[in-house]
Amino acid sequence: MRPRSENWGKRVNLFDTLFGRPLATEEEKAERIGPLKGIPIFGLDALSSAAYGPEAALTMLIALGMAGAAYVWPITIGIVILLGIVYFSYRQTISAYPQGGGSYTVATENLGEGAGLLAAAALMIDYVLTAAVGISAGVGALVSAVPSLQSKTLWFCLAILFVITVVNLRGVQETGGVFLLPTYIFIFCLLGLIAVGLVKAFAAGGHPVPVIPPPKLTAVTGTVGAWLLLRTFSSGCTAMTGVEAVSNGVMAFREPTDKTAKLTLTTIIGILMVMLLGIAYLVPAYGIAATDPGAPGYQSVLSMLLAAVTGRGAFYWVSIASILVVLSLSANTAFADFPRLARAIAQNGYLPHAFVIRGRRLVYAQGIYALAALTGVLLIIFGGITDRLIPLYAVGAFLAFTLSQAGMVVHWRRLGGPGARYSMVLNGLGALATGITTAVVLLAKFVDGAWITVLLIPALIWMMRGVRRHYALVGEEINTMRPVETTNLSEPIVLLPLDRWSLVADKALRYAWTLSKEIHVLHVHFGEETHSLCRKWGEMVEKPARAAGLPLPKLVVLDSPYRFIVKPIVEYAIRQQQEQPDRSITVLLPELVESHWWHYLLHNNRPEAIRALLLFDGNQRITVASIPYHLKA
Amino acid sequence: MRPRSENWGKRVNLFDTLFGRPLATEEEKAERIGPLKGIPIFGLDALSSAAYGPEAALTMLIALGMAGAAYVWPITIGIVILLGIVYFSYRQTISAYPQGGGSYTVATENLGEGAGLLAAAALMIDYVLTAAVGISAGVGALVSAVPSLQSKTLWFCLAILFVITVVNLRGVQETGGVFLLPTYIFIFCLLGLIAVGLVKAFAAGGHPVPVIPPPKLTAVTGTVGAWLLLRTFSSGCTAMTGVEAVSNGVMAFREPTDKTAKLTLTTIIGILMVMLLGIAYLVPAYGIAATDPGAPGYQSVLSMLLAAVTGRGAFYWVSIASILVVLSLSANTAFADFPRLARAIAQNGYLPHAFVIRGRRLVYAQGIYALAALTGVLLIIFGGITDRLIPLYAVGAFLAFTLSQAGMVVHWRRLGGPGARYSMVLNGLGALATGITTAVVLLAKFVDGAWITVLLIPALIWMMRGVRRHYALVGEEINTMRPVETTNLSEPIVLLPLDRWSLVADKALRYAWTLSKEIHVLHVHFGEETHSLCRKWGEMVEKPARAAGLPLPKLVVLDSPYRFIVKPIVEYAIRQQQEQPDRSITVLLPELVESHWWHYLLHNNRPEAIRALLLFDGNQRITVASIPYHLKA
Repeated sequence: MRPRSENWGKRVNLFDTLFGRPLATEEEKAERIGPLKGIPIFGLDALSSAAYGPEAALTMLIALGMAGAAYVWPITIGIVILLGIVYFSYRQTISAYPQGGGSYTVATENLGEGAGLLAAAALMIDYVLTAAVGISAGVGALVSAVPSLQSKTLWFCLAILFVITVVNLRGVQETGGVFLLPTYIFIFCLLGLIAVGLVKAFAAGGHPVPVIPPPKLTAVTGTVGAWLLLRTFSSGCTAMTGVEAVSNGVMAFREPTDKTAKLTLTTIIGILMVMLLGIAYLVPAYGIAATDPGAPGYQSVLSMLLAAVTGRGAFYWVSIASILVVLSLSANTAFADFPRLARAIAQNGYLPHAFVIRGRRLVYAQGIYALAALTGVLLIIFGGITDRLIPLYAVGAFLAFTLSQAGMVVHWRRLGGPGARYSMVLNGLGALATGITTAVVLLAKFVDGAWITVLLIPALIWMMRGVRRHYALVGEEINTMRPVETTNLSEPIVLLPLDRWSLVADKALRYAWTLSKEIHVLHVHFGEETHSLCRKWGEMVEKPARAAGLPLPKLVVLDSPYRFIVKPIVEYAIRQQQEQPDRSITVLLPELVESHWWHYLLHNNRPEAIRALLLFDGNQRITVASIPYHLKA
Repeated sequence: MRPRSENWGKRVNLFDTLFGRPLATEEEKAERIGPLKGIPIFGLDALSSAAYGPEAALTMLIALGMAGAAYVWPITIGIVILLGIVYFSYRQTISAYPQGGGSYTVATENLGEGAGLLAAAALMIDYVLTAAVGISAGVGALVSAVPSLQSKTLWFCLAILFVITVVNLRGVQETGGVFLLPTYIFIFCLLGLIAVGLVKAFAAGGHPVPVIPPPKLTAVTGTVGAWLLLRTFSSGCTAMTGVEAVSNGVMAFREPTDKTAKLTLTTIIGILMVMLLGIAYLVPAYGIAATDPGAPGYQSVLSMLLAAVTGRGAFYWVSIASILVVLSLSANTAFADFPRLARAIAQNGYLPHAFVIRGRRLVYAQGIYALAALTGVLLIIFGGITDRLIPLYAVGAFLAFTLSQAGMVVHWRRLGGPGARYSMVLNGLGALATGITTAVVLLAKFVDGAWITVLLIPALIWMMRGVRRHYALVGEEINTMRPVETTNLSEPIVLLPLDRWSLVADKALRYAWTLSKEIHVLHVHFGEETHSLCRKWGEMVEKPARAAGLPLPKLVVLDSPYRFIVKPIVEYAIRQQQEQPDRSITVLLPELVESHWWHYLLHNNRPEAIRALLLFDGNQRITVASIPYHLKA
């Protein structure tokens, strides 16, 4: 006997190198995180929006020339106020749902199943889009810096997706650790930029001289309208899609979980507000406006601001690099929360049970796989350039925010007690603000593609209800409180397909004798082979069987005018099943087990085909058993 | 019970629409073909070379300007003489091997296994390249005519590959029928062009006036050298790669097979010679030289000749269209012969047995699949533009021709008798001519890529020898002349993994009782589910079993600190196998059989995983049986 158990051990170790050793269930506490790691895990989506939110808003204002800069400040104030409302409401949610209260949970518990599924569908779509857009935004920034890499865009996207997936599969601690450094370099650089910029601006009485002046502004070609401002506002609002994740992931934090989660959320939102306000103040102060991303000489707003404040030295390049990295890693927020969301949905039976199971590293591995697969498909379809997807997202996030806040209002009203009134007002304000924002975002982006989200959401809800219905039907069908049936236990009829006499056949036949007295050996007619088997049958099988007093197996030669091998065997089994309604039928399939994978190319895969067809076409009474024959060759 | 047999019938019918109804073995005679269909099936590679052979040769001569035209005639005469020699030698081969005598068969039988494998490897490589280059040449001509299709090159290539594959899978008759029309239009157009051109040329005393004059010749920039002429010759020699197919495919022809095959070969070679000579005469007569394929204003030689002789009327466009179609279909010769070649190799055990089996339409379907897959991979890797592959082929074909001719010389010497001397000289001349050509082609194209072929051939031979060795070892291991062993037949220990009590569990347990008195029910610890199962066990199983006098199954709860489900079960089975060296072990896996494929996403695939791991990690004594539970939901 070969020392198989050693092989087994070796294989697991190889796996361990990539994904880490398995973690025992009781190690769960050690996997919990504090704010330090919480920010890279949950906060990257929010923080990275400091890099693309102002840019998105300013791009909308290009047509206004220098006049546009005047609108940056009020729009940013609007966004920051909204962010503040959403922040305070979500603090409440964390207090009320210390087990994790994402929009799905809150909406389901307070507004009912329909609202919950609506939030779930909206959020799932949003997370897939966040992951795809985040990765491709990072790579897009990279290839616009190094144009020679342009043709490799998709490969870079997929490589980053792979890294994020593997890191997340390695567990929460690991993810926080790996993404720690780039996150804090990014925060340090942007806060540093703002500090230096503000000092210089104040020193110069509000009119600092840029170290490297930004390009001249384009001529004014448009006029201000409410519609333009609304669209600008909604572009800037993409800055908020990362807020939900913390409140859904409370259980990932150290005890006291709700306090730690709140501290993390406060830090993320605080830093983001400082960044947004700082950039909004400095951009007009330094006379910067967005340049057309399609035109030659394009530069991102942050790049111009960095050059204007600090020049193109080491600080500039480190900052640019950290922005690139954080943009690509912003997808991680989706990876942190999507599996938790999918798990919550699956616990209620609306998604496959597999999403509930914690993998070897205590993460919900199936959710990570699903998100990675969906993101990968999006990236491949769009060739790694997902600009056209941007209008599709934010709608989902704000819809979920609104449902969550509305749910919290109901929650407080139901709960009552001191402070409930105050909380209700706060969450009500949140619901109102996010509700209006949802409407604005939806209107502003409807034609550009938000309508796709509007169609996708009901499709997803329909699918989730279908999953739940299926589970319910299966449960009804197989659940039983009846004790096991003990009558009518008769030996199965054993069917054994054989092509020729060999040690493989010998083994299978011996096994057949231990199962039943009625054995049919099935042989499909195949020229000389058939004659040879029939000639040998008496000598090889019947004589020794008679001598040992064993039942004689019946040799059945099946005709096959069309040279099929699998079909006559399957048809014989199904005929037996029809003709012998009170017997069970066991088909034994001798299988060669090879020592190298490529050996499988050299032998037929008929056993697999017979097995699959019998499981599908047979009924309850057909059982298929594989009799392995391990080859040394 | 559901009427499963009807379903089965329906599925086959769907399949039939695409691939045709299955053909019975006795219908083989009706599938045989005559010269009419033989030409489209076996001759397209040869005939299409009239379209690209002269072009390839003339392109080599561009640098010589008008002076180059003087060399066209002698080079073509050389190629036609070589073609004549190869033709007469292959006629001999067909007479000697009326069962089909490709290079592989002839070289193996007369020169030994090594020479046979050399020919086999060379030909297989050549056929894959022929298929890829043929398809992409056709599509290349199409997109150069309609440049807006350029970006779809790969898709066109894959679509044509798909059509050729399906048509070939439908059988020989069908292939001949589908490709009949384009082939004969092509032949009619080219012969018509030559006839009209010759008449006009003679009428004008050798200096006809072109209807549409060809572009002015470029200035002379190079001089004639032997090397240039050799390379031109070898480029023109690609005209010959289609000759082998007929002699290998003799058995596809109607009785008397050898006569029909010879008639087909004669027709193909005759038409090809007329075309080559006609084009070679007309091209200089009309003052045509090749244009640079990379430069703007490029036109193919045949397009210029057609325009010069007939103008740009209906005839011009029909001819151009038929050339495009025939170029893309030239891949069909590879599809006609590769499966036959693979079958001959597999019959000797050097390729997987699957290549020997005739599919439902009496063609060697596995060979067609293999060629389609390899061709598809090449097309995808090169994005449908396979110009860089052209230097790789022809070497293989000529090497095979040489081995075949040399083999025939040995054959005649061994056979002796009247006429053998004459035949020997003819085949000897063939061997000499093709041998020299092989050397020339190899030298001329070595640096451009023929060296890859030189490396690939030994790799393929090594692989084929490995396949044969593996089959021999497996044969040694499992072949036996010993009658079946009848001692030591004891009931298996039955292991039954269960997660909870249900009708599925009920069914599996009932089956277990029919197999053995020793049943271990394996349950992996999983929180509340475990308590529930243990609580119910007495009521649901033990009480009724005792009442019926059945053996009590042993309930084993397996601990799983890492939340693995599959691993503890597999490990338990392997432990049993080690602890009970004289018992066989049967693992029963209850499997839910769903009514829709997508239901499989909703249930776990653990049975599959357990089955695979047990087959690999277990030993001879572990058997795995699937107990299907058919769901109606």
